[in-house]
Amino acid sequence: MKIAIAGAGAMGSRIGLMLHAAGNQVILIDTWPAHIAAIREKGLLANLNGQEAVAHLPIYSPTELPADLQVDLIVALTKSMQLDQMFQMIQSLIHPTTYVLSLLNGLGHEDTLEKYVPKENIIFGTTTWTAGLKGPGYAELTGTGAIEMENIEPSGKEFTLKVVDVFKKAKLNPVYSDNVRYSIWKKACINGTLNGLCTILDCNVGELGNLTVTKDLITAIVSEFATVSQQEGIHLDQASVIAAIEATYDPETQGRHYPSMYQDLIKSQRKTEIDYINGAVWRKGQRLEIPTPYCAFLTELIHGKEQLLNAK
Amino acid sequence: MKIAIAGAGAMGSRIGLMLHAAGNQVILIDTWPAHIAAIREKGLLANLNGQEAVAHLPIYSPTELPADLQVDLIVALTKSMQLDQMFQMIQSLIHPTTYVLSLLNGLGHEDTLEKYVPKENIIFGTTTWTAGLKGPGYAELTGTGAIEMENIEPSGKEFTLKVVDVFKKAKLNPVYSDNVRYSIWKKACINGTLNGLCTILDCNVGELGNLTVTKDLITAIVSEFATVSQQEGIHLDQASVIAAIEATYDPETQGRHYPSMYQDLIKSQRKTEIDYINGAVWRKGQRLEIPTPYCAFLTELIHGKEQLLNAK
Repeated sequence: MKIAIAGAGAMGSRIGLMLHAAGNQVILIDTWPAHIAAIREKGLLANLNGQEAVAHLPIYSPTELPADLQVDLIVALTKSMQLDQMFQMIQSLIHPTTYVLSLLNGLGHEDTLEKYVPKENIIFGTTTWTAGLKGPGYAELTGTGAIEMENIEPSGKEFTLKVVDVFKKAKLNPVYSDNVRYSIWKKACINGTLNGLCTILDCNVGELGNLTVTKDLITAIVSEFATVSQQEGIHLDQASVIAAIEATYDPETQGRHYPSMYQDLIKSQRKTEIDYINGAVWRKGQRLEIPTPYCAFLTELIHGKEQLLNAK
Repeated sequence: MKIAIAGAGAMGSRIGLMLHAAGNQVILIDTWPAHIAAIREKGLLANLNGQEAVAHLPIYSPTELPADLQVDLIVALTKSMQLDQMFQMIQSLIHPTTYVLSLLNGLGHEDTLEKYVPKENIIFGTTTWTAGLKGPGYAELTGTGAIEMENIEPSGKEFTLKVVDVFKKAKLNPVYSDNVRYSIWKKACINGTLNGLCTILDCNVGELGNLTVTKDLITAIVSEFATVSQQEGIHLDQASVIAAIEATYDPETQGRHYPSMYQDLIKSQRKTEIDYINGAVWRKGQRLEIPTPYCAFLTELIHGKEQLLNAK
């Protein structure tokens, strides 16, 4: 399959590398000049569970895509706030037979993608793989994970099953989901508690879990996610989401971990994805006239902190 | 007049010193052993607008009050969370003719005082004086201020007017108020925005004022205070409270100031008075079935931060 990775950061590098190793024709698209230069010079390097790997993949910035380039699948893996600009810039790549698989975290990306891609050609997915970048052109890829995906319109199923097959051969552990939107909401809801609260309280997941107030706070936030998602036909089981959140507190597993939003904002002074997590629930709630004060307050506190830290 | 100051910290020292200088018989009551020892050894020392002053005042811990001690007025100036314990310990001091003037910040103190003092003998007040302690037994007293006070039952008016007169002779700039509860609510509402937000965002008042999100946040919090206070017969004018809050942002005036809650928690790892500001509105709201999610969330975030910083 001919596949473009739109957003070839840490996770995009992992998926691109593994799909390439399984014999697919992979093209990377990214906006970071140093990353592009490094991959053009030496290929995409990776430490893959302790083994050094290299993949000589073409990489383009969105502005320099060859006009006649055509792919079967675009895997969207930008940061949430860069999705719109990326798809605006790579419109030439989107033909009537091009499918797009979004693996972004967070909510509300369907609104963005539908501006550029026919609904029938959109596949949504969620992944538990992890990935890091040690520097431009060099990915650190440890552990294992899985991907679930589902077409959003029935007509997309046949192609989605092909993608599952291609991902299976690349050992990406895909499954065809019968309710990927549930998984996306559940993941967003877990992120919507741990990310914002650890960031604003300046603590790791285990420390958050130890606080007397945390049960109340996560219960209030999860309830807002569940009330809004219900209106989109997704019944989030609040008790099981809370159990999944509480399972992360154990210091022997994820308890010592600082969530990605903490790392973005507090460690690296980068803007966060809060608008696509709690902020998305707040926006959806406003449209539906459902009050979501906890999501609203948390979104504004994080934006306040971004401004105080002069996050870019 | 014979006056006991229950809680002779910075503000209690100021009021005690000034009342003593005007010829009143003043007794200090406090729980800090080093402060008691220093005042017993050298008297209460103060830098009063640049002039060194000393007042040789008796000081007791609540547990060692002489059994036959009687005063006309007790001025309550403990920290909010210490009020109940203080009055439990000084019950022997409260006779049928003893009045209590509360100058504490925050809300809900009437519930505490009414456990120990007949309602007719309670006076509430609020002050704009400031004060600091440089160390045990040594107060730093600069600037000027005023006090307003009002009896909560009509029968207390005669004595309250006497107290106003005594305070006037002590140059404490008192006025008899015809709506002290309005002033207390307004002050609590200003504190209920600046204190909690600066503390959780780790910024000073001017930096808070510069944030894009601040108008939204203070509007939401002020609205909760106003909705709850309305049920107590206090009509908080939201626009004027917001204007009073916004007047503090100017770096030429209070903008460079870190609110007392920030100083307590972030600088000194001491527990905050949040339960008597936003927390009191939340509790009152629960009793009245009025939702106060911003006050609730902010109260819980501050408690979470107290626990993370191991505040005492």
